[in-house]
Amino acid sequence: MQNGTVTISVDAMGGVNAPDSVIKSIAQICIQRSDALFLIYGDKLKIPLLLRNYHIPHDRYQFIATKKVISDDAKPTNALRDSVDTSMRSAIEAVRDSRADAFVSCGNTGAMMMISKMILGCMKNIKRPAIVGCMPTQNGRCVMLDLGANVDCTKMHLFQFALMGDCFAKVILNLPNPRIGILNVGSEDIKGRILEQQVAEMLRQEPNLNFIGYIEGGDIFSGNVDVVVTDGFVGNVALKSAEGLARLVLQLLKTSCRRTKRISILGYIYKFFIKNLIVQSLSHIDPSNHNGAMLIGLNGIIVKSHGNSRTADINNALTVAIELAKRDINHQIIEELNNAKIQDHISIEKIVDKISEYLHH
Amino acid sequence: MQNGTVTISVDAMGGVNAPDSVIKSIAQICIQRSDALFLIYGDKLKIPLLLRNYHIPHDRYQFIATKKVISDDAKPTNALRDSVDTSMRSAIEAVRDSRADAFVSCGNTGAMMMISKMILGCMKNIKRPAIVGCMPTQNGRCVMLDLGANVDCTKMHLFQFALMGDCFAKVILNLPNPRIGILNVGSEDIKGRILEQQVAEMLRQEPNLNFIGYIEGGDIFSGNVDVVVTDGFVGNVALKSAEGLARLVLQLLKTSCRRTKRISILGYIYKFFIKNLIVQSLSHIDPSNHNGAMLIGLNGIIVKSHGNSRTADINNALTVAIELAKRDINHQIIEELNNAKIQDHISIEKIVDKISEYLHH
Repeated sequence: MQNGTVTISVDAMGGVNAPDSVIKSIAQICIQRSDALFLIYGDKLKIPLLLRNYHIPHDRYQFIATKKVISDDAKPTNALRDSVDTSMRSAIEAVRDSRADAFVSCGNTGAMMMISKMILGCMKNIKRPAIVGCMPTQNGRCVMLDLGANVDCTKMHLFQFALMGDCFAKVILNLPNPRIGILNVGSEDIKGRILEQQVAEMLRQEPNLNFIGYIEGGDIFSGNVDVVVTDGFVGNVALKSAEGLARLVLQLLKTSCRRTKRISILGYIYKFFIKNLIVQSLSHIDPSNHNGAMLIGLNGIIVKSHGNSRTADINNALTVAIELAKRDINHQIIEELNNAKIQDHISIEKIVDKISEYLHH
Repeated sequence: MQNGTVTISVDAMGGVNAPDSVIKSIAQICIQRSDALFLIYGDKLKIPLLLRNYHIPHDRYQFIATKKVISDDAKPTNALRDSVDTSMRSAIEAVRDSRADAFVSCGNTGAMMMISKMILGCMKNIKRPAIVGCMPTQNGRCVMLDLGANVDCTKMHLFQFALMGDCFAKVILNLPNPRIGILNVGSEDIKGRILEQQVAEMLRQEPNLNFIGYIEGGDIFSGNVDVVVTDGFVGNVALKSAEGLARLVLQLLKTSCRRTKRISILGYIYKFFIKNLIVQSLSHIDPSNHNGAMLIGLNGIIVKSHGNSRTADINNALTVAIELAKRDINHQIIEELNNAKIQDHISIEKIVDKISEYLHH
């Protein structure tokens, strides 16, 4: 980062709508803000053409041609083995070599996690990276982690997720003292699995964290909590269940609109208003407006945009990457880890973790 | 059950709107159908008054006065200790003594589970009862279990949940061969925790079950699956997250409606249509229409209605209880268990289970 300007390395080839929507989004961000430069990795024929089409100023980017692309449905292990000279890996290497301050891609999430872990490594003392993203609430947004990187977690993993989520919320939601809650099946102390009870005990001992106790699935969207902590299995199911219900609601509203239209001519008229109203009302829960999840806990800022991202979605992901880089989130995480009363010195926990890692990988 | 008529024992005192909405609902069911009789347990002063007010025919019910009520926020263990002569326990005892074919209550779920487990006991070979209920889908409904009774599960628990869910779907959704899916973080074979992978392996070996593999959170509402199998922690979080998002959507639509109204007089006019449309569209996802979850796996049919149940909700729960009793669901479960290729003869599983039960209780 120089003079407040950050450099973002972008895998221009990942995702269903790449590279067109990726380059279009970079063009829009270049107009909106002047504090970001881009290293663009991708196909030597397609990308220069798009860069010209979208009139991106020459002093805002550098294009690096790469030979290969990781397909969206490749198995992460296969993708990793064959990753040299792909747009994704080369762009991640730019972060490792300090040529870029953050990385963004709409590509294969599993491959992104594996390659970044190998190229960048985990932050010192961080046991597992997690996926952290934003969710809509009644009065704004909250952050939630892990959204799917780790299906099995120990208490030390969840404890560190809470610390990292705290830093993410401070930067992205701009909150001085985010309220941290553990996702559980009830709010009473006795509720939940042993895992949740142990993590709650650890978080209660941290005077620097604003730990508010257990929250339930419904609280994610209520605005009662800023950081939702859970394991990657539960987090992924909760996220996708909510998305699934949102899709169902939209489908039902659409079907009704269509039926209304058939009934009368008046139907045609107010269909216009209704459609407007619905689109306007529900824009807040539109995933595009909350896109840009971070693979948090790595030696570098890695931001993933979802696979079907369009320009609006990628704009959000790029903005998240720029903010995280400008506020140097990883430095904040290291500080929180150092200040945490509970350090990872419990040897039994380490042994269990090693066994569990051995069993699962 | 005599001549196709079933007897339902009802705890008239549980839930926020009890006893009024409970008795009102019984009155409505008595008009709608002639194949159910009711044993009504509750306060000796309030209930007779309501029975008269709602004109329930004398030959359709028997009233049994009870002295105590289990409060909705009582701790299950305390409730159990002090449960003699409560409306809930007395009504459950009617099922044990074969005076009733099924039980319904809107009261304290934890207490209901504990008391029914003690009074009725688990079905032979069933290791853990679960909570099974219906969820709305794009083209109908699916059933999901466990919705919160067991936060920690072994593969044998989940395997039995699949068998019981299959029977529940056959009765309640009237499907000859329900599609069974395991809730997971992806659809590929390698996805998920060891638990999900082991259960999938067990279900693949059952020729009588229509096992379709893994499903994701979003599939719950898609209509791609009829029985969603998961542990009580994940199931509870998924259910409540989806409900939370539904509440957020309604809130956003309402706020927009209010804003629209302020803008113009035309707003007032089409507000009426919009409200109608929204209410109509979303009635399918209204929890009232899917109310009535079964505590499945007990020696008796126990149906819970949610705590805030109004008459429409209780109507659904009573209907579920009547259908389950008429189709003798527990007999079907016993048959499926006997026909299952995988029986619980693996001693290591038993040992692990004993240790886990010892650790958690």
